[in-house]
Amino acid sequence: MGFRDNIRRVVPYTPGEQPKERVIKLNTNECPYPPSPEVIKAMKELDWERLRLYPDPLMADFTESLAEYYGVKPSQVFGGTGSDDVLSMCFLTFFAGDKPVLFPDITYSFYDVWANVYRIPYETKKLDENFRIVPSDYYAENGGIVLANPNAPTGIGESLSVIEDIIDHNRDSVVIVDEAYIDFGAESALALIDKYENLIVVRTMSKSRALAGMRLGYCFGSEDLIKYLNDVKYSVNSYTLSIPAIAAGAAAIKDKEYFEETVSRIKKTREWTAKKLEDLGFSFFRSDTNFIFAKPPVGFLAVSIFDELKKHGIYVRHFGKERISDHLRITIGTDEEMETFIDTLKVIMEGN
Amino acid sequence: MGFRDNIRRVVPYTPGEQPKERVIKLNTNECPYPPSPEVIKAMKELDWERLRLYPDPLMADFTESLAEYYGVKPSQVFGGTGSDDVLSMCFLTFFAGDKPVLFPDITYSFYDVWANVYRIPYETKKLDENFRIVPSDYYAENGGIVLANPNAPTGIGESLSVIEDIIDHNRDSVVIVDEAYIDFGAESALALIDKYENLIVVRTMSKSRALAGMRLGYCFGSEDLIKYLNDVKYSVNSYTLSIPAIAAGAAAIKDKEYFEETVSRIKKTREWTAKKLEDLGFSFFRSDTNFIFAKPPVGFLAVSIFDELKKHGIYVRHFGKERISDHLRITIGTDEEMETFIDTLKVIMEGN
Repeated sequence: MGFRDNIRRVVPYTPGEQPKERVIKLNTNECPYPPSPEVIKAMKELDWERLRLYPDPLMADFTESLAEYYGVKPSQVFGGTGSDDVLSMCFLTFFAGDKPVLFPDITYSFYDVWANVYRIPYETKKLDENFRIVPSDYYAENGGIVLANPNAPTGIGESLSVIEDIIDHNRDSVVIVDEAYIDFGAESALALIDKYENLIVVRTMSKSRALAGMRLGYCFGSEDLIKYLNDVKYSVNSYTLSIPAIAAGAAAIKDKEYFEETVSRIKKTREWTAKKLEDLGFSFFRSDTNFIFAKPPVGFLAVSIFDELKKHGIYVRHFGKERISDHLRITIGTDEEMETFIDTLKVIMEGN
Repeated sequence: MGFRDNIRRVVPYTPGEQPKERVIKLNTNECPYPPSPEVIKAMKELDWERLRLYPDPLMADFTESLAEYYGVKPSQVFGGTGSDDVLSMCFLTFFAGDKPVLFPDITYSFYDVWANVYRIPYETKKLDENFRIVPSDYYAENGGIVLANPNAPTGIGESLSVIEDIIDHNRDSVVIVDEAYIDFGAESALALIDKYENLIVVRTMSKSRALAGMRLGYCFGSEDLIKYLNDVKYSVNSYTLSIPAIAAGAAAIKDKEYFEETVSRIKKTREWTAKKLEDLGFSFFRSDTNFIFAKPPVGFLAVSIFDELKKHGIYVRHFGKERISDHLRITIGTDEEMETFIDTLKVIMEGN
């Protein structure tokens, strides 16, 4: 016996690489465009001497902006340091029972990590051969459900009726819909928030709002669920969001025009990239996200292309996991970056 | 049965009030002086467009500055969003056994909250009648130990030999020494970090470094313990510190001169305030922190003085807890703030 016996042993999530050199980074689904000029203005005007004081623990400027923008009550909004923090708090709060939590076998690879760290029993349900959710799989008895919609790393969005069917069949479980990529496609479950008191809709500002470096995420739910979530959050860290994070989040949400323009540019580049990948023989399902999850044509190995791209200074993501190790996840960058990516891909494939 | 049965029910920590009006805030032990000019310079010069990218998950600029300043290896340093985040991660990582974790009955009131949220068994040990730790209380079998040194809200620092005695008697437990206030007095256990592989020393930048609003904390330990801590951290949130937080933390640590000057000013104001409180008949032990934990003279109720001060726009902290409800915790502000505080106190006490 020793102190090591009391240590929680876990296998952590592996984030995508953050290379320091000058490269084309298409590996962590960041936004290729800067945050809204309103965010930059807010940072330039911030009174940095105020950092000596604690932030507002209610982060009201942030949650109130979100409530106004999305047409919900501030008491239906919860914020955190990235949607990872929000999801982690949700797992800790809502999955405290003994029954297994359910999520797909292919999905955001942090779900099983949170389940493991918090000792939450879980079961994965196989996506079908087209990477689609089988709703009836989620009719089984469970202690909670987590669905990413659109799903990662597949990029596929399910229709709202599929999502609602699962929520409706699980009135005795909290159902978390992780909408990290919702702004790029698929219908949001936010419309169902007042209809189902067991629903939590999680969002991030790291993708469509270009604020990955500020760490901002949030979720919506019934006032009741948000209250329980806050109780747990205040039992972990009273002040999760810093003064600049609250200010940046509020400023970003208010700039509707820039946000919509950014999303529309990324979607346009995605369609261009999809066409080019198709021409090169890649196969993939229509993406509802800011990335494309594509399988190289016969005769090419995903992992080899991944390595070759890296040698050329282009980072994409490859998951060495069952059922998806033959795919690459390619973040949509700027037009210029995607042109370089496609050109490099051609060179690599011709040299094969 | 319903989804509420799976919800973790907790009684959260209550942070000190963050009043929005113009008041004298002596209630949350913030620094009365702004952060280092180097921090403000770093924020003014930050390339805010970079917020579109994720931060460095290793937060290397921050941990390397700390390692250099304190003479340890970067692999012996761990950072988080305030020492609350660091302590929370430590509880989750190191107290995963079945035996009770021990800490004093009067101490930072977040310890039992973390124990409750993570379902960690714990036992409190009574401080003696002079609010001092009784080392032999901590010789009992346990699953871990947490000691704040100097202690909060008492303000009392124990000698390093008392702390070492407890660490030495507990080679089979992780001993966490929470040094949030160490820069204002008492000897740090950092000197013991290479001697005891079961020791973790936690610090914050919210007090002596005037960065409460940026959320920055850190801890030191053996490379082994820091590795386990990082495994758990990467199982909760890959990127806890934002780009500006990492930059501000590194800038603050490098400005030794400003830091030492700030601490020395606060200590000087503390001695002045102590003298004045003594003159007014308050009783208290010598403070090793940036606050004074004082008991009003016979005939005066702590809670009444607290209420009266609030009416005058001066916020101090009162804890409605056994053994300490007859005390007030008074943060050391600027000279001017403390003069106003003492003058107001006189008016209140004369009017009694």
